[in-house]
Amino acid sequence: MAEKQFVTQIADINEDFPQWYTDVVLKTEMVDYGPVKGTMIIRPYGYAIWELIQKQLDGRFKEHDVQNAYFPLFIPESFLMKEAEHVEGFAPEVAWVTHGGNEKLAERLVVRPTSETIICDMYSKWVQSWRDLPLKCNQWCNVVRWEKATRPFLRTSEFLWQEGHTVHATEEEARQETITMLNVYREFAENVLAIPVFCGQKSEKEKFAGASATYSIEAMMLDGKALQAGTSHFLGDHFSKVFDIKFLDKDGELKFVNQTSWGVSTRLIGGIVMVHGDERGLKLPPAVAPIQTVIVPIAAHKEGVNEKAEEIANLLKKNDIRVKLDDRDASPGWKFNEWEMKGVPVRLEIGPKDIEKNQAVLVRRDTHEKIFVSLDNIENTVKELLATVQKDMLEAARAHRDAHTCNAENWEEFKEAIENKNFVYAPWCEEKECEEAIKKETGATTRNVPFDAESVEGCTCVHCGKKATTRIYFAKSY
Amino acid sequence: MAEKQFVTQIADINEDFPQWYTDVVLKTEMVDYGPVKGTMIIRPYGYAIWELIQKQLDGRFKEHDVQNAYFPLFIPESFLMKEAEHVEGFAPEVAWVTHGGNEKLAERLVVRPTSETIICDMYSKWVQSWRDLPLKCNQWCNVVRWEKATRPFLRTSEFLWQEGHTVHATEEEARQETITMLNVYREFAENVLAIPVFCGQKSEKEKFAGASATYSIEAMMLDGKALQAGTSHFLGDHFSKVFDIKFLDKDGELKFVNQTSWGVSTRLIGGIVMVHGDERGLKLPPAVAPIQTVIVPIAAHKEGVNEKAEEIANLLKKNDIRVKLDDRDASPGWKFNEWEMKGVPVRLEIGPKDIEKNQAVLVRRDTHEKIFVSLDNIENTVKELLATVQKDMLEAARAHRDAHTCNAENWEEFKEAIENKNFVYAPWCEEKECEEAIKKETGATTRNVPFDAESVEGCTCVHCGKKATTRIYFAKSY
Repeated sequence: MAEKQFVTQIADINEDFPQWYTDVVLKTEMVDYGPVKGTMIIRPYGYAIWELIQKQLDGRFKEHDVQNAYFPLFIPESFLMKEAEHVEGFAPEVAWVTHGGNEKLAERLVVRPTSETIICDMYSKWVQSWRDLPLKCNQWCNVVRWEKATRPFLRTSEFLWQEGHTVHATEEEARQETITMLNVYREFAENVLAIPVFCGQKSEKEKFAGASATYSIEAMMLDGKALQAGTSHFLGDHFSKVFDIKFLDKDGELKFVNQTSWGVSTRLIGGIVMVHGDERGLKLPPAVAPIQTVIVPIAAHKEGVNEKAEEIANLLKKNDIRVKLDDRDASPGWKFNEWEMKGVPVRLEIGPKDIEKNQAVLVRRDTHEKIFVSLDNIENTVKELLATVQKDMLEAARAHRDAHTCNAENWEEFKEAIENKNFVYAPWCEEKECEEAIKKETGATTRNVPFDAESVEGCTCVHCGKKATTRIYFAKSY
Repeated sequence: MAEKQFVTQIADINEDFPQWYTDVVLKTEMVDYGPVKGTMIIRPYGYAIWELIQKQLDGRFKEHDVQNAYFPLFIPESFLMKEAEHVEGFAPEVAWVTHGGNEKLAERLVVRPTSETIICDMYSKWVQSWRDLPLKCNQWCNVVRWEKATRPFLRTSEFLWQEGHTVHATEEEARQETITMLNVYREFAENVLAIPVFCGQKSEKEKFAGASATYSIEAMMLDGKALQAGTSHFLGDHFSKVFDIKFLDKDGELKFVNQTSWGVSTRLIGGIVMVHGDERGLKLPPAVAPIQTVIVPIAAHKEGVNEKAEEIANLLKKNDIRVKLDDRDASPGWKFNEWEMKGVPVRLEIGPKDIEKNQAVLVRRDTHEKIFVSLDNIENTVKELLATVQKDMLEAARAHRDAHTCNAENWEEFKEAIENKNFVYAPWCEEKECEEAIKKETGATTRNVPFDAESVEGCTCVHCGKKATTRIYFAKSY
């Protein structure tokens, strides 16, 4: 009975996906609701995933000569007001500090929703000459956006993220950096999170407030909805002109820098849940699984079982596998269910009969496949299996996405495809009114224009019938 | 001349220590002032030190089964108000959020000055049974305290820190945890930061607002002042009673948990500067030096010099030494000064004559000693030298501290010792009025009572002459 109870605690993934999501993130103890509306507590199991994300992404940033730094949480109101589009985009959703130490502040402070303005203020002091460029800083920090409708990881009033901010001597170099960092995100999403993504440029309406151009990686969730999983912005000289970031170039002229910013957040954790989960709960890609292999002793009361289990645990640990030996006083079935719900990629079972045969049973979380393997060289067998699971999970996610991505050349096809929970790739006129009408009628929004978008010569907009100027992905989204 | 300029940019360490400190932290580009009063930007060179602190301390926490998590920045006003001493201690120095998303909030929010209250609120949900205990979470985050007099790293309105929060089934276990974590800090300060510390218990006046007992590690700066470098609090059941953190014990009874909290902050970076620096600037212990060895090619225009320098750099890198090859177009002397100011522990010089002799010149930052070494096995030679520097820096700091620590049995001795910039260990009555009078007269505050404090039988208080009840360290402090 205990076995059943675990599973029935989670809503049916096919009947109520949103409730399934909430059940999974709460019951696996990844997250809890905070006392202030829209805030979350990232519990140890969720935070361990974030640490693995941080570590692996941070290494990639450093390979690109990005340095970490820390900029203040509080931004003077006057900073936010400097860049016209930026203030319009962010002012309605910020939290305001008005009092400090029992005194009313002379100027209100914004709790950072993003740090372009305060970083620009510092860059204007630090950058003097072409020798100071490029300057590339990143920070891992918390940001606050006063959201109305919130969901753990996906949209919360406070979240954790990284924000990279770079300034360059030329527009070309800044544009290049924007794309380079987008590609870092793409490669990371695929190889670490096992999430395939569409890369491309956002529409004018969907771009970052203050950017010249925004690029994104877009992932498909199991319910066919899109999750914008990371963005990279080419900011041009919008901010450098209002914050006066100038440098003396080699040719002796004073010039404004060109700028980029790019970020991913704890929202990625929600993406992992919604790309890989199933009716039993979480499925974690090995690269971000806090526990990669759980060892469950069978008939643990029998002589030698616990000792053997411990021996294997130590051997795997020594080989840099994140392993947990579950020696609690509970039935194996109960343990199987718990660790399946928690998404541990590989389970290793070992009982008296296995020991007799010098074998162990490995069970894959992604396919439920059961494999009998020799205890000789078990550390490499597990390592290889984890690598296989990582690869197969990406391919499974890709297959799901590709099966739910289609083209539409006319409005009927478009509507049907969106209703059937697809990403729809379609010719479009790029007009804001048309974009808003499509959203109103179908709930779908533009995702991005791929870099290799086919020609639209002679095509008409899938919705309004005017001349199409591009091809773009549409989808309902989180 | 360039050589001189670097040094003269820094105030004389013997004449104006506070200005020397400010010059060093700004000119080495560790930190900059933020636009909001009392805030700082931790620049890449300073942040890299913080990352090394984080990594090495976090590993120690995890060895003690502490798990990382993340709790919200905003705390409802009502939470702060629950524990009487806590609110008295923190309410006067918090920042208040009153508006979110253009609307006035129903309840004001505190920007966390510390997270006991919000963590207790969650623990009261998470803890039900003795099986849930002990529960040990830590978070690395920013906190805000509206300070009047601020200095980079040492006291800022916003700073970064870690705060560990544990709950236990028994008072004894919680008291044990408090001391265990204090010892983690002591060992870390000594072996990683090369800072010797006095461990012990704070006075009633100096303890954390809401704690039963506070313990600290106290370090001596080069000017003889104390820096409280880390604290560990035994909170008893003060918070668990007001936040209702109860568990069903093995004996079937509902009991309140016993609790600890402990933290260190970016203030440690200021401590490193003020314990180890000299007239030329920073001196970084190798364990927290972002660059452990800088390679400066001599007569770099000569054939083969740059190639050899690069070859050595790659070899050291491969051996996990944090190395930088300074191949900029500047004089060696200019480079020497810059890297000395930035505190790089070992400089490696290599020129045509060295290559001829199959040697390199190593220069220690801590002692200025110049050592000619063979290029054979250079990676191990450098590694061993770094280990020696690390050890010797701790011993040098210990020697300085011990030379400036003394006993005082009467008030004349006490005043003279404090005037002469000493830590003074003296018998004391433990009365708050006496503590305040001592501070008023001499500027010295109580630091802590060591665990092995000698008996005070028959002794009188060094200040008021009443019966002494303990022996405690006094010092002026940051």
